[in-house]
Amino acid sequence: MAKIDHLGIAVRSIAAARGFYESLDLHIVQQETIEHEQVRVAMIPVDESRIELLEPMAEDSPVGRFLAKRGEGLHHVALHVDDISSTLEELKAKGARLISDEIQIGAGGHLYFFVHPSSAGGVLLEICQDPIADV
Amino acid sequence: MAKIDHLGIAVRSIAAARGFYESLDLHIVQQETIEHEQVRVAMIPVDESRIELLEPMAEDSPVGRFLAKRGEGLHHVALHVDDISSTLEELKAKGARLISDEIQIGAGGHLYFFVHPSSAGGVLLEICQDPIADV
Repeated sequence: MAKIDHLGIAVRSIAAARGFYESLDLHIVQQETIEHEQVRVAMIPVDESRIELLEPMAEDSPVGRFLAKRGEGLHHVALHVDDISSTLEELKAKGARLISDEIQIGAGGHLYFFVHPSSAGGVLLEICQDPIADV
Repeated sequence: MAKIDHLGIAVRSIAAARGFYESLDLHIVQQETIEHEQVRVAMIPVDESRIELLEPMAEDSPVGRFLAKRGEGLHHVALHVDDISSTLEELKAKGARLISDEIQIGAGGHLYFFVHPSSAGGVLLEICQDPIADV
């Protein structure tokens, strides 16, 4: 069954943004750097979901370009599914526009792909699944 | 403890948008009309959270103006808290910019207020709490 895995929020500075979340008693528990996306990610658990603050490491990176165009705000919504392969096939069959046609492997081995906002009500949508033990 | 209550997504037409969510096996279970906001709302449960599709009933309404300015996409994120009064006081004390200084009573008696995007990393943030039985 699908659930909201995380919300990715583009910010200019994690250090500047974290105070607001702390005033809601929401705290960063982990930070990591994703080199190939040139982004620093701060994870804030929210019950069983989480907010990810995304700070670009370069202006010419996906999040850097987003900030230049739209300013700070929600960058993407991630839905967790149980069977990412069948979800991908289902969306392809329905003609959804995808950012990439292949399932990617991300940090910690989780699987993901992105649906273009034009197919998902204006929202950049990540579909993800937990790592597969055998991979 | 805070959790993600719902994501409000502005769409031009609920009828046109629902097909994409159905292909993810996410289904509308309820629709309602909020007259004073001039908006039609379709609720899609996602595990313990939900997506709300927001279709404006007039161009000159909050969601109608949002669509004209930004197009379809995420309109707001709602966080559920256990004690909305103390959260409101905390945010006021920190100088957060609020859309209204008072707690409002919404559909079904739930309590809510909105934090301006300029104080919440570019995201229009609703803080909400379940109805209070004694009210």
